[in-house]
Amino acid sequence: MRSEQIEALLADVAAGRLAPDAAMTRLRHLPFEDLSFARIDHHRALRQGQPEVVFCEGKTTEQVVAICERLAVATGSFLGTRVPEATAAELLRRFPRMAWNPLARTAYLAPSAETAAPRSTGCILVVCAGTSDLPVAEEAAVVAEAFGHPVERLTDVGVAGLHRLLAAGDQLARASVIIVVAGMEGALPSVVGGLVSVPVIAVPTSIGYGASFGGLAALLAMLNSCAPGITVVNIDNGFGAAAAASRICRG
Amino acid sequence: MRSEQIEALLADVAAGRLAPDAAMTRLRHLPFEDLSFARIDHHRALRQGQPEVVFCEGKTTEQVVAICERLAVATGSFLGTRVPEATAAELLRRFPRMAWNPLARTAYLAPSAETAAPRSTGCILVVCAGTSDLPVAEEAAVVAEAFGHPVERLTDVGVAGLHRLLAAGDQLARASVIIVVAGMEGALPSVVGGLVSVPVIAVPTSIGYGASFGGLAALLAMLNSCAPGITVVNIDNGFGAAAAASRICRG
Amino acid sequence: MRSEQIEALLADVAAGRLAPDAAMTRLRHLPFEDLSFARIDHHRALRQGQPEVVFCEGKTTEQVVAICERLAVATGSFLGTRVPEATAAELLRRFPRMAWNPLARTAYLAPSAETAAPRSTGCILVVCAGTSDLPVAEEAAVVAEAFGHPVERLTDVGVAGLHRLLAAGDQLARASVIIVVAGMEGALPSVVGGLVSVPVIAVPTSIGYGASFGGLAALLAMLNSCAPGITVVNIDNGFGAAAAASRICRG
Amino acid sequence: MRSEQIEALLADVAAGRLAPDAAMTRLRHLPFEDLSFARIDHHRALRQGQPEVVFCEGKTTEQVVAICERLAVATGSFLGTRVPEATAAELLRRFPRMAWNPLARTAYLAPSAETAAPRSTGCILVVCAGTSDLPVAEEAAVVAEAFGHPVERLTDVGVAGLHRLLAAGDQLARASVIIVVAGMEGALPSVVGGLVSVPVIAVPTSIGYGASFGGLAALLAMLNSCAPGITVVNIDNGFGAAAAASRICRG
Amino acid sequence: MRSEQIEALLADVAAGRLAPDAAMTRLRHLPFEDLSFARIDHHRALRQGQPEVVFCEGKTTEQVVAICERLAVATGSFLGTRVPEATAAELLRRFPRMAWNPLARTAYLAPSAETAAPRSTGCILVVCAGTSDLPVAEEAAVVAEAFGHPVERLTDVGVAGLHRLLAAGDQLARASVIIVVAGMEGALPSVVGGLVSVPVIAVPTSIGYGASFGGLAALLAMLNSCAPGITVVNIDNGFGAAAAASRICRG
Amino acid sequence: MRSEQIEALLADVAAGRLAPDAAMTRLRHLPFEDLSFARIDHHRALRQGQPEVVFCEGKTTEQVVAICERLAVATGSFLGTRVPEATAAELLRRFPRMAWNPLARTAYLAPSAETAAPRSTGCILVVCAGTSDLPVAEEAAVVAEAFGHPVERLTDVGVAGLHRLLAAGDQLARASVIIVVAGMEGALPSVVGGLVSVPVIAVPTSIGYGASFGGLAALLAMLNSCAPGITVVNIDNGFGAAAAASRICRG
Amino acid sequence: MRSEQIEALLADVAAGRLAPDAAMTRLRHLPFEDLSFARIDHHRALRQGQPEVVFCEGKTTEQVVAICERLAVATGSFLGTRVPEATAAELLRRFPRMAWNPLARTAYLAPSAETAAPRSTGCILVVCAGTSDLPVAEEAAVVAEAFGHPVERLTDVGVAGLHRLLAAGDQLARASVIIVVAGMEGALPSVVGGLVSVPVIAVPTSIGYGASFGGLAALLAMLNSCAPGITVVNIDNGFGAAAAASRICRG
Amino acid sequence: MRSEQIEALLADVAAGRLAPDAAMTRLRHLPFEDLSFARIDHHRALRQGQPEVVFCEGKTTEQVVAICERLAVATGSFLGTRVPEATAAELLRRFPRMAWNPLARTAYLAPSAETAAPRSTGCILVVCAGTSDLPVAEEAAVVAEAFGHPVERLTDVGVAGLHRLLAAGDQLARASVIIVVAGMEGALPSVVGGLVSVPVIAVPTSIGYGASFGGLAALLAMLNSCAPGITVVNIDNGFGAAAAASRICRG
Repeated sequence: MRSEQIEALLADVAAGRLAPDAAMTRLRHLPFEDLSFARIDHHRALRQGQPEVVFCEGKTTEQVVAICERLAVATGSFLGTRVPEATAAELLRRFPRMAWNPLARTAYLAPSAETAAPRSTGCILVVCAGTSDLPVAEEAAVVAEAFGHPVERLTDVGVAGLHRLLAAGDQLARASVIIVVAGMEGALPSVVGGLVSVPVIAVPTSIGYGASFGGLAALLAMLNSCAPGITVVNIDNGFGAAAAASRICRG
Repeated sequence: MRSEQIEALLADVAAGRLAPDAAMTRLRHLPFEDLSFARIDHHRALRQGQPEVVFCEGKTTEQVVAICERLAVATGSFLGTRVPEATAAELLRRFPRMAWNPLARTAYLAPSAETAAPRSTGCILVVCAGTSDLPVAEEAAVVAEAFGHPVERLTDVGVAGLHRLLAAGDQLARASVIIVVAGMEGALPSVVGGLVSVPVIAVPTSIGYGASFGGLAALLAMLNSCAPGITVVNIDNGFGAAAAASRICRG
Repeated sequence: MRSEQIEALLADVAAGRLAPDAAMTRLRHLPFEDLSFARIDHHRALRQGQPEVVFCEGKTTEQVVAICERLAVATGSFLGTRVPEATAAELLRRFPRMAWNPLARTAYLAPSAETAAPRSTGCILVVCAGTSDLPVAEEAAVVAEAFGHPVERLTDVGVAGLHRLLAAGDQLARASVIIVVAGMEGALPSVVGGLVSVPVIAVPTSIGYGASFGGLAALLAMLNSCAPGITVVNIDNGFGAAAAASRICRG
Repeated sequence: MRSEQIEALLADVAAGRLAPDAAMTRLRHLPFEDLSFARIDHHRALRQGQPEVVFCEGKTTEQVVAICERLAVATGSFLGTRVPEATAAELLRRFPRMAWNPLARTAYLAPSAETAAPRSTGCILVVCAGTSDLPVAEEAAVVAEAFGHPVERLTDVGVAGLHRLLAAGDQLARASVIIVVAGMEGALPSVVGGLVSVPVIAVPTSIGYGASFGGLAALLAMLNSCAPGITVVNIDNGFGAAAAASRICRG
Repeated sequence: MRSEQIEALLADVAAGRLAPDAAMTRLRHLPFEDLSFARIDHHRALRQGQPEVVFCEGKTTEQVVAICERLAVATGSFLGTRVPEATAAELLRRFPRMAWNPLARTAYLAPSAETAAPRSTGCILVVCAGTSDLPVAEEAAVVAEAFGHPVERLTDVGVAGLHRLLAAGDQLARASVIIVVAGMEGALPSVVGGLVSVPVIAVPTSIGYGASFGGLAALLAMLNSCAPGITVVNIDNGFGAAAAASRICRG
Repeated sequence: MRSEQIEALLADVAAGRLAPDAAMTRLRHLPFEDLSFARIDHHRALRQGQPEVVFCEGKTTEQVVAICERLAVATGSFLGTRVPEATAAELLRRFPRMAWNPLARTAYLAPSAETAAPRSTGCILVVCAGTSDLPVAEEAAVVAEAFGHPVERLTDVGVAGLHRLLAAGDQLARASVIIVVAGMEGALPSVVGGLVSVPVIAVPTSIGYGASFGGLAALLAMLNSCAPGITVVNIDNGFGAAAAASRICRG
Repeated sequence: MRSEQIEALLADVAAGRLAPDAAMTRLRHLPFEDLSFARIDHHRALRQGQPEVVFCEGKTTEQVVAICERLAVATGSFLGTRVPEATAAELLRRFPRMAWNPLARTAYLAPSAETAAPRSTGCILVVCAGTSDLPVAEEAAVVAEAFGHPVERLTDVGVAGLHRLLAAGDQLARASVIIVVAGMEGALPSVVGGLVSVPVIAVPTSIGYGASFGGLAALLAMLNSCAPGITVVNIDNGFGAAAAASRICRG
Repeated sequence: MRSEQIEALLADVAAGRLAPDAAMTRLRHLPFEDLSFARIDHHRALRQGQPEVVFCEGKTTEQVVAICERLAVATGSFLGTRVPEATAAELLRRFPRMAWNPLARTAYLAPSAETAAPRSTGCILVVCAGTSDLPVAEEAAVVAEAFGHPVERLTDVGVAGLHRLLAAGDQLARASVIIVVAGMEGALPSVVGGLVSVPVIAVPTSIGYGASFGGLAALLAMLNSCAPGITVVNIDNGFGAAAAASRICRG
């Protein structure tokens, strides 16, 4: 809640334009909608600059559908991540215009043209170490696009074949923010971070042989990067990386 | 190594302005200086937009002094982190102008006015959960200042007393990037991230009772933040947070 | 075994009202019933003030049914947690009056009116961070109700949107004990603990992206809470939180 | 921030008794005092029912002294935990009336008689498994006494010699809340929890051979207690257990 | 290889009763049988006093059947643990006399009367904390019986209801070795170890809520037992406990 | 990229045999092929002496088939590891000559005779502790053969029956490199390493009871081997061991 | 508390030989002595067959001396483990006859001849993998001797030089119980367990390079031993191994 | 023990050249020397091709000196690792010719010229990521030299400044085996492994900020390397890497 809003409200009360009771009610009447099992935060776009995104894992299809319907009514748009196939099918039945990306497991109902956020000018580059890391990278790319940013992709450029990465110098140079998705030893963000001066967001994935321990190896490697200024999000959290990149591009 | 540099060099060779041997030498003669125990990367400022910073833990005083002297000669400036007290004393003896911050354990020889980087316009806010987290927060603040950014500080605003944080809404609103330093349960970045739309960089610290496990509790909490778009650096890594914030402010 | 019981027994022996052998037998004949694979503790309600609850995970349907039938005979009531769907179906076939809650996975045969425990006056509030944490919160709520306590619920009030929690100040103020269920970074108990003076019991859930490590992140965060006096139960252990809240409300 | 306070303030503004600017200032002027490195929360006693306690680990002697002096001025009392010996000596020099407990490492300046909180009627029992666990148990006991509760102690009653615990049945029966402090296998809370119906708060300690892993073994055991309704605080966190017990006794 | 065997062999060579080549062959011809994917150690009964037991997890049905057939031919008996249901069915088809225990997942072809090992006189008591721990306890009991020892069972005597255990004092007193199987907090071996003077072997099980971490909580608790002289085997390793108990009873 | 290649290229440019633009193109035109979801590194055989191997876990059948077809066209050969059964079936349909090993889960299209790499003279011995470890050992053996090395196998020689290993002294003596595959306590590499002077590569497997923690126990044991000069690869990583052995045999 | 004791007491009460009150007092008057910070369990020798041993880590010198003096008065003997040097010096000043072993860190006051326990006939063999493991092995040996058992020692027989162990076949054959102390990969118990049929107790030590993680590597290896019937005690817990061996030898 | 030795011995017995008793004695008299606290393995050079190296951590100065003196007498040489400064001083007093390297903490008494092992022809390259990793790298280099191999060093070539590594292409190309020492994210071995075809041995170090967890981050990264054929030794184990490299160079 911004202080300007409170100042305006107080001014109204002082001027007699608003009764104290009504002011109290308004302060209480916060901008969310209560579905009993979920409180939809319609004002997040104002407060954080991004629409609320529905994390679908652990929710029933009924819950997801109800939330998305309310979002569609209120904003003309919604974005779901980690959408199970069955849930996606049910959503598609109701919102035929919705885009379902089975690799990224995202379900996106784009806003109509007039309400869409103006696209930022900077470009977000999503770099992906190996083919097996693609679902996470794709989640990041889809979310970033839904948040209104131009996105480029660079895939299968692991550190064991450096020439593939070095050959993409132009793409690296063009980016405003770089999201680097890697499993196994998680070394790619360090190498990318040493080549560029823009922000680098590292996403560890759970891909790897035994002692990757579900992505722990890559996560620790990225946290310990010797390239200064690399930041890290949770394992397999392509959505979080896109949200962070979006904060930067709007910053 | 940028492709333009190679193109220029190839053009010189083709034009007979440069012998192949000399071109080969130049490609080899990369912009670092070899002290046998360290290779100083003088061109990092060009490549990554930040000066090389000397991480002093695990290095002998002799090694640190030798590296700093070369940096001073080459660039007129140096910045050391995790500087042991004895090493700082020896550096101060040689560089009386150097700033030694014992809380942050940083040693900074500022460049002379004419070579200093132009200061960015955005402001970096360093938020610190508790008094015990101050050394890490201070490292972040000192490094960010050395990198040329205006810095503000907000201290002792842990989540168990939310009103202290909520009272600082103006400071939060003013920042371009926010570094949030917290130990114990590491919840502060989530709360801050829910209040602002700018990038939030979380720094877990090793402060806490038994099951904080040297900062692991705070680290995991921050990686699992329910506020979208929080990124995380290593435990106690104030330097890394400042470097990331600097990448963003220049971005 | 209470000392009064022994004293009474010794008095009976001294008075010749009880033969030593019979006294010995009585001391041995402790109040449990042996089903060979389970020893039902009928006196727990006396000793601990709560009925024995059947934890159904890892037990066969046959074992669960046999235990519940004995409990129904002896006390007119039973409560099962973590009940698999098939086991619930079999129980329902035999006890049509039983309440089966598929979200909480609880099966409850309420006692008949005259044997029901008198309801406590204090209210237990179950606060739930996100929709995905609902099954654990619901287990806590159902168990607390079965133990005879009035229960209120407050759902989807995660710390990234503080206004949703702050808007529920009345509910928080009304509670005698608050159970806070949260996954991801587990920050909600710290924030709630900072707002109220009543006991707060934190329940970490296994909900979250990769580095939540099955709830470990939330568990560690809650153990390290900077709000003084938060206590914690096991991951996903809604039952345990309700049992602890019940101990407090009867205390 | 309580809604009544806002209501009163809004009424004042509506009545012209308070200018909007002044109201804004007052909303900002929250009840903490800013020492630049610490924000003292003088109103915590109102909000949470307990005075703010100074956690001294990681703070310099100067910082601790400054905070305690402000607390003494504002409330006539302070309580420090984890107080290093040198800090305690400096505090004693300034506050000769202060009680310094070197085993518990607590420093307590009791309030003068007229400002002391009314003592609760229930009794808190601190049970300690072994002699090596005494410092943690003593921290719990001292803090509980400072919070105004009668405290009893029961020491060296580990589960490998059950008769020692069983002989203390009267003490167990008398308690309103029981804090159980144990290292090694952490089994004592389960046994105590099976004997009583009042709330049991378990405190794991870092005492033990190799695979206790700094108290992790006891912590996990307590979280997995088969006695329903045991809650757990952080390793070695006697303070936290006392704060939780105090919440219950006031509840 | 025992020194007596070598001495006898050397004596034979010296006496000309055995050619050096033949002696060499005999030293090489060690007592195992090579099935290419398995080397059956027929002499283990001599060397270690126990028949070789077939651990079936991770082996194909074909491999298990082949190994068991060779063992049946060579010794008239076999014992399989962790036998999948399908493998058991195939074994039963070929060895109708075989005993299949689906709870313990053991498959045992008892030796014919004349070759059976003489039964030891001491009794092995298998104590089981909860009904959910029964499969592990049963594996221990079946294996101990197959190794020729009298076995008693005591079930559902967890530490939260001590009276159930204390009522079984006679059984505890009668045992030569006690195997204690427990999940959750793993406290039962400490309590049993404090009551008896005979060897106690603790078996942690993987039963429990979230933070049992697959039995780690119980394992650590047992390793840290405050009852002196408790030893521990691997999580869920009923077989190993029986083998250890058998070593003791023959010792 | 080797310096000789650059020198040659620079010489061509200097001699006018190659235009700068063309040289630039050639430097850019690095030897990989872009399938959008994968960049095939055809020159790896030159650079690292081994063909690129397709790790199939986490790739769709379509992706694997597309990659293998390109490799077959370019080199007449391919080798896949961790091949799911369905993927193998699809590959077999297209490449009937392909060898599918269901135990090792490898799919190998051998090169035609004239392009096959010359076989090395040294022999790689794959030692396997137990029958359950066979799939990993077999992966190592198949890959080593595909890389052109003679391979021998020695199976079921765990340390609890040392005579089985000691009887195989000749095989151990014959090997140039020994790969030792073991789960459970992972002791076999230490024993083998104490018997031979050639390189020993240890492969931990995920086989074992509870506290093997998916191979962690064996991994840690091997890293801590008291036999000097044992090196270790990832859990279950038979492929990695074969690749390392191949580097040594060509070394 | 044994049932015979209760039966005798009940008989006395029935016969009028004992008043109920007096009987109650006697049941209460349990056989321990209360020093306020410790309850000495004088009857443990009767109950568990072993004297109470004083674990000195974490106790002050004053506490240890007070406990030992009471034990000396009551039993004429005491045994301390993990005794700090200063504590040992103070004990020696008071008990000049006491044996202080600085390598094992044990302090032992042997009972006078007439009260000493009869020595068992079986022999306990303590096998030690490396010289660095000696302190733990020596603790085991000293404790076993104090418990009245003949002890033999076998040192520096790690698995990387098997011939050193195999040469000691006679010693292995002679033992009734074998304690195997090993750090690093912890493989020695598996090898010993494969050679003998008597009970083998494994003691992991915290000796090793980085990834031994304070003995965790050896602990896990021993728990996963492929030699059936190995049991394990805590890391560095020589005392526990001796206590377990003593239980077996008296069994 | 080689089979040829046994064959020769058996032939001697058969020929009457050796009495059975004497043969038995000889078989027993294995080639180690018993110092009671250590068994020196003089024949290791024959069996494993490398002299026994004294790991000095956890041994007293007296033990180290005694072992080194026996080695000097028997072989004219010794090599100690992890030598504490005080122990080194005492060794230097007795062996003035000994080389003491305080950075690597090695103490080496080189053999006299005539007994020195013939030097291998291949070169071992020790690559070190950062200056802080130098002690481990230097241990590897000193040990490799003592084992008779030519050694080159390449220092401070971390992956965040790739040009420093790429500029050393000649050194990489020249090596027979490469040891790569790195802390932090441990990415260097993957990059080096992608550039060369010779064996690469990775050594993680314990250098790094908080979440390096004592080298665990680097260890896991190296085990998960995407460059095929990288093998790994224990954290900080420069000695082990040198021993492995030596096995390869002699292979």
